[in-house]
Amino acid sequence: MKNDAFSMTLLFDYYGELLTEKQKTYFDLYYNQDFSLAEIAEEEGISRQGVHDALTRTEAALRHFEEKTGMVARAMERRTALDTIEKAALQLGEQPLAKVILDAARSIKE
Amino acid sequence: MKNDAFSMTLLFDYYGELLTEKQKTYFDLYYNQDFSLAEIAEEEGISRQGVHDALTRTEAALRHFEEKTGMVARAMERRTALDTIEKAALQLGEQPLAKVILDAARSIKE
Repeated sequence: MKNDAFSMTLLFDYYGELLTEKQKTYFDLYYNQDFSLAEIAEEEGISRQGVHDALTRTEAALRHFEEKTGMVARAMERRTALDTIEKAALQLGEQPLAKVILDAARSIKE
Repeated sequence: MKNDAFSMTLLFDYYGELLTEKQKTYFDLYYNQDFSLAEIAEEEGISRQGVHDALTRTEAALRHFEEKTGMVARAMERRTALDTIEKAALQLGEQPLAKVILDAARSIKE
């Protein structure tokens, strides 16, 4: 289940706030705090199967948000273009316009 | 109700795909095609009040997505920073690095 941990946590960064509190809690315990399904079940007072099903639904919801809006994919493309801008601005060296460009590119990345 | 048409259509551009087909249809007829509530009611075979309530819920859903994720607000900030980059790149004039920067900035805007 955790094979996809990188892309799952990336999706969670973007769409996590659209989940319910319970979904966020389970997701956080499982993906960020590395709890096992059994440990989450014990912690939350539900069955291991219940945790498993809830996580499966949460993962499906996160994938659904991305399929529908594509915001993470676009953010990745943007990141590449911003790297290009930063690199070119650094090559321009010490000049005021290069600094303006660099600062603006970095402000977008933040 | 249509006071907020600009911000509503902007939110719809970002989050519209997260709505149901029916919500999208009513929204499109009302905000993009300028149908009245009564005209949508007639077209869709429901009451005017039903259309009103559905649109109110759709608007609330769109605002909810933005409150939770803030993606439109960030896109607006990004747009300002990209304008700054474009302007500075144009001021750099005819040089290969300026063109690299300009092309990358414009690719993000698309």
